[in-house]
Amino acid sequence: MEQIILDGKQVSKKVRESLKEKVTDLKAKGIIPCLATILVGDDPSSETYVKMKGNACEKVGIKSIRLHLPKETTTETLIETIENLNHDSSVHGILLQHPVPSHIDERAAFESIAIEKDVDGVTSAGYGQTALGFGKYPSCTPAAIMKIIDDYDIPVDGKHAVVVGRSPILGKPVSALLLNRNATVTTCHSHTTNLPEIVKQADIVIAAVGKPKFIQGDWIKKGAVILDAGYNKGNIGDIDYEACLENASAITPVPGGVGPVTISMLLKHTVEAAALTE
Amino acid sequence: MEQIILDGKQVSKKVRESLKEKVTDLKAKGIIPCLATILVGDDPSSETYVKMKGNACEKVGIKSIRLHLPKETTTETLIETIENLNHDSSVHGILLQHPVPSHIDERAAFESIAIEKDVDGVTSAGYGQTALGFGKYPSCTPAAIMKIIDDYDIPVDGKHAVVVGRSPILGKPVSALLLNRNATVTTCHSHTTNLPEIVKQADIVIAAVGKPKFIQGDWIKKGAVILDAGYNKGNIGDIDYEACLENASAITPVPGGVGPVTISMLLKHTVEAAALTE
Repeated sequence: MEQIILDGKQVSKKVRESLKEKVTDLKAKGIIPCLATILVGDDPSSETYVKMKGNACEKVGIKSIRLHLPKETTTETLIETIENLNHDSSVHGILLQHPVPSHIDERAAFESIAIEKDVDGVTSAGYGQTALGFGKYPSCTPAAIMKIIDDYDIPVDGKHAVVVGRSPILGKPVSALLLNRNATVTTCHSHTTNLPEIVKQADIVIAAVGKPKFIQGDWIKKGAVILDAGYNKGNIGDIDYEACLENASAITPVPGGVGPVTISMLLKHTVEAAALTE
Repeated sequence: MEQIILDGKQVSKKVRESLKEKVTDLKAKGIIPCLATILVGDDPSSETYVKMKGNACEKVGIKSIRLHLPKETTTETLIETIENLNHDSSVHGILLQHPVPSHIDERAAFESIAIEKDVDGVTSAGYGQTALGFGKYPSCTPAAIMKIIDDYDIPVDGKHAVVVGRSPILGKPVSALLLNRNATVTTCHSHTTNLPEIVKQADIVIAAVGKPKFIQGDWIKKGAVILDAGYNKGNIGDIDYEACLENASAITPVPGGVGPVTISMLLKHTVEAAALTE
């Protein structure tokens, strides 16, 4: 069976090229799209992620404002910082890098982001709009998964999608997006008792569990499409790639699959938010 | 196999008795819980529903304000009416009876309800909070389903729940509530291709499709729990009751199942909203 390798780098490249043009148009109208990123503390991988996002902005012409707050920052100070950005008309998108230090009420901080600047899709209000079908900025990884599906013309309507994971920015919103596109959706998680059996029914498998090589080759139905949103230490996804490849009809690699498209969705949402201020 | 008939009237009665006490307490503190209902137009069954809800309020001591707007009402006027209620501190809950006449943008009207008064659980913000696990007032029918499940100690954790239907106030939020209680949840709908097979896997079946006797007896796994949120003409639910009874371990009748508890959840949310103004 010949597999299609879903090339996230290629999908991402096309998105970023089209964004460059849009940014040029906006700048001609005097609008400079701008994403503010907030990093709290010194977690090295969070630092890397924020840097990657900021750099990606600049490559397509989006201005990047990078706030780095000390790890002692209180919830109140963080929320104040976010509210200042909410009121700053030169900022179109706000990204608070997850996770924040454990003494901070991360949910309260996320909720303080104005919905029109929630380009990372972390607020409950944004989630609600996405799930009810009229959200502007779904969380970026779910948006990336849908973008890959669309670019490769993968049929969703009437298909059985099995999502493994239920986090607020991944498993839950990707389940909602697939449901809104007329998939039958099963959402699985750590309390699911017969996971292999359930995954075996999937026409579309979404791996969003955060455990390296968790999803096994013999769980995959012949012809299934697999999108792996996992990104674990050592560039390893949530699926056992080599083993899963065998039965898949299409599959994302890690790295080079969902990851790069995720950042492109962040850029896309930021440009869209800027365009709405025209 | 002996079936438990899940007696919604009994569940409802207990809720309402406890609400009467809470209302008495609140009144002693000078707070009169108050629900405002809005009916637009002259649809006879909507009129009946609104009347039932208003009367149920009064029976437990909740004040009921009943606004009846003509069928020509515009979206703007309806939203203005809602905003006045949002600002009226004597009103604790607002219910806009669905459906409104077709020329009105119902979603815009729902969205204009202040989240702290959205006791019927219709706003996307309320939905988002419910789905992410910290919502105060889920939609009333999903809340009723969970209340019956809890009152009868039906295990949910690790069970496979199959929800048939995906409406914004029923199928989607009940899927979210069950997922948050650690069920594995499959949400099905009109585009689901192999519905009988999927329902056959369910430990818990939620019928929320709005088609009389839609779910057949031979779709039910032996020992499944069935909650029927359907209410079709002639007091007929969404399941073929007699046929489904055979394999079920527990089942809601129609009428007398989910229905009465739904109204009790509306009353409960209104009293809770009033208590928060203490």
